[in-house]
Amino acid sequence: MARTSLSGFPEWLPEGRIVEQFVLDHLRHVFELHGFAGIETRAVETLEQLESKGETSKEIYVLDRLQAMKEAEAGRRSSKERRMGLHFDLTVPFARYVIENANELDFPFKRYQIQKVWRGERPQDGRFREFTQADIDVVGMGELPFHYEVELPLVMAEALSTLPIPRVTVLVNNRKVVQGVCEALGVTDVEAALRGLDKLDKIGPEGVAAELAGNGITAEQTATLLAMAQIRSASAEEIRQGIAGLDLSSELLEEGVDQLCALLESAELRLPGVVVADLKIARGLDYYTGSVYETVMEGHEDLGSICSGGRYDSLATDGKRTYPGVGLSIGVSRLVSRLISAPVLRASRKVPAAVLVAVTDEADRHRSDAVATALRGRGIPCDVAPTAAKFGKQIKFADKRGIPFVWFPGADGEADTVKDIRSGEQIEAVADQWMPAQEDLAPRVEVC
Amino acid sequence: MARTSLSGFPEWLPEGRIVEQFVLDHLRHVFELHGFAGIETRAVETLEQLESKGETSKEIYVLDRLQAMKEAEAGRRSSKERRMGLHFDLTVPFARYVIENANELDFPFKRYQIQKVWRGERPQDGRFREFTQADIDVVGMGELPFHYEVELPLVMAEALSTLPIPRVTVLVNNRKVVQGVCEALGVTDVEAALRGLDKLDKIGPEGVAAELAGNGITAEQTATLLAMAQIRSASAEEIRQGIAGLDLSSELLEEGVDQLCALLESAELRLPGVVVADLKIARGLDYYTGSVYETVMEGHEDLGSICSGGRYDSLATDGKRTYPGVGLSIGVSRLVSRLISAPVLRASRKVPAAVLVAVTDEADRHRSDAVATALRGRGIPCDVAPTAAKFGKQIKFADKRGIPFVWFPGADGEADTVKDIRSGEQIEAVADQWMPAQEDLAPRVEVC
Repeated sequence: MARTSLSGFPEWLPEGRIVEQFVLDHLRHVFELHGFAGIETRAVETLEQLESKGETSKEIYVLDRLQAMKEAEAGRRSSKERRMGLHFDLTVPFARYVIENANELDFPFKRYQIQKVWRGERPQDGRFREFTQADIDVVGMGELPFHYEVELPLVMAEALSTLPIPRVTVLVNNRKVVQGVCEALGVTDVEAALRGLDKLDKIGPEGVAAELAGNGITAEQTATLLAMAQIRSASAEEIRQGIAGLDLSSELLEEGVDQLCALLESAELRLPGVVVADLKIARGLDYYTGSVYETVMEGHEDLGSICSGGRYDSLATDGKRTYPGVGLSIGVSRLVSRLISAPVLRASRKVPAAVLVAVTDEADRHRSDAVATALRGRGIPCDVAPTAAKFGKQIKFADKRGIPFVWFPGADGEADTVKDIRSGEQIEAVADQWMPAQEDLAPRVEVC
Repeated sequence: MARTSLSGFPEWLPEGRIVEQFVLDHLRHVFELHGFAGIETRAVETLEQLESKGETSKEIYVLDRLQAMKEAEAGRRSSKERRMGLHFDLTVPFARYVIENANELDFPFKRYQIQKVWRGERPQDGRFREFTQADIDVVGMGELPFHYEVELPLVMAEALSTLPIPRVTVLVNNRKVVQGVCEALGVTDVEAALRGLDKLDKIGPEGVAAELAGNGITAEQTATLLAMAQIRSASAEEIRQGIAGLDLSSELLEEGVDQLCALLESAELRLPGVVVADLKIARGLDYYTGSVYETVMEGHEDLGSICSGGRYDSLATDGKRTYPGVGLSIGVSRLVSRLISAPVLRASRKVPAAVLVAVTDEADRHRSDAVATALRGRGIPCDVAPTAAKFGKQIKFADKRGIPFVWFPGADGEADTVKDIRSGEQIEAVADQWMPAQEDLAPRVEVC
């Protein structure tokens, strides 16, 4: 990480940015292969919009124009401007974008969105106040088929499992299972049950039992809920057996189990070993109505979920129509910060240049420029030495940055040469023909 | 442009975003070919930092945490947080980044930075409050050779002139020429002369003369300044002749003319016809000390300069060292907004998918998914139909989005077929082998 004077606002050195850009390019590539259209929304929303989901006010950064503030202090402020704040996720702005452009968009609308978001939280525990999220969502107009609840987590699973990072596991559950179990048990306060179960890893079964008891849930009901929360498997068969062992009956439960198992079966066909059903996954947000998803990275479980989401029946509504959807969001900055600092990944060099063209004499700089132009014209990134220093110094310039090749324009009548400064091998070369190995063309991102 | 409820905050529909992404990818590609390292800085700076350059206070968006504001209103706010604002350009944050990371960076440091910036201005005249800038700068530690003043505008000239947009001209001048002329004329208030000449296009020679007279510049001095401001040519020879015609002598003037002509000569060799010296170019910012640059697009002169910058002797200082540099900034949103709305460019389709895989029956969706997986595995972006509707409806789904191909999984024992819905041609195909034409693989950005 780069040095920075404001905590919670991460910045990378150029070599760290290469790792981040590599991750972002990879995500974009996978999202586009799956047909998701890229959009960006403005960073700013009205406070009204930002607060419409409730309970988030502590996180919002509110904007004011400095000039307007000074005018207000001087008692000269007349016009009331609409209060605006920075978006704290990409879901609220996407909902507004869909409503505003409903007539121009084609539904179901599949979009990806990779942008910074801001939260005014205390930057403790490695929490960032500014960070990049990468979201995919598909929204329908009025209706959205279930199969998207299978497709979207598999897109994210593919995107993450094809990165050179530790093994990721997508944990899935279905709200209908939990609600169905509550229904069959006669537990009416489903929200309380969800909130309690969500803390299972933190406070243990006794803690959850105490909390549920405080919400009027009986010991017997709690025992069944905790038994349900223990069920975890990648096998649809085992999930069905586990649920059967609870000995409960509810239409909603049956529907939820069918959906959860359909997801597991598709996942097993398409990406074996990545998706696991875990019935204690609750997800805090109350707008999820079907599948819910979390993702953990092996050996980095302390990061929490690096990619989460679910099915919602109403992303937005414009009064006439509702827009149901399914979506997941990757916390890119949190992930990349770990990949850089662990370190898990590193860049093979600090700059894009594959070649440094040496300068023999300032009067001959135009010859070095011509070599660089020829190389660039053939797609080879390069830099020209800043001064006609001694060659040893020019080689050191390349070495410090990790540039693998130094090009020496030949004296009059002599051939140019290019030196691989890693091996020391130096060969004659022509700028219109020489090509570095494909793997040296751009900085590589390597596993540490 | 997409519909949006806040003026000054542009958003694009997916097809517009394809045009913007195309421009951004192209810029990044050219910057990297020239060896510039990509960085990002946080969106937020301290107010102290933002106001350090003076005269910008009216533009700054200040941040406050909503919760902190509520606490303050209730009289419960205790801790004074450092006031922060959104950056209004990429130069101020870059200067801070260089100072903070001077020990980790290698100088001269060449970086590109493509990010959003915010200005709280009234959104009249098509001005944006949120927009993307693409900057390149090179900064030295303590010193920076002149040749970068030649190189950097040529990088931008290459980046812009290789886009499929109307012809761009990079207009160049050198502060030393204007200062040298003032020196030779005995004009002491160089800033007033620069400010006046900067308005030549707006208020004409009479207007400028009146303004200069008001600043104590004599009619004779003004006549020479205006004669200088008329000089415009891509030819170094003509520039030398024009300056000679002013019949002035000053060492600074001579140095300025030499530098300006060196720039023109290199430009003529490397990118003939793109760079023109225009001696009325002044640039408002007072920190430029050598070359200054502006860029106009033919037929869109009303946009003003789409790419500007110059040489500065002190980007930043940490007390011990100063960091001189040269940089230019493209106003990407302003340019892209025009390209989309004119329209100059358009996307060949609205989505990344080259193929829509039809679904014959919901029970057979897994077969369509398998085709899509095979195509994606070979780098072909595709989508699967949302429902097993009649084929006519599925073809319409593809047509609305501009997806060129629809894939029909064959009934048992029969071959799959793929239909080019533009020509109507339908052929048998195997998902492990079929490939669309290269030009159909991704959305193209076409000249309208």
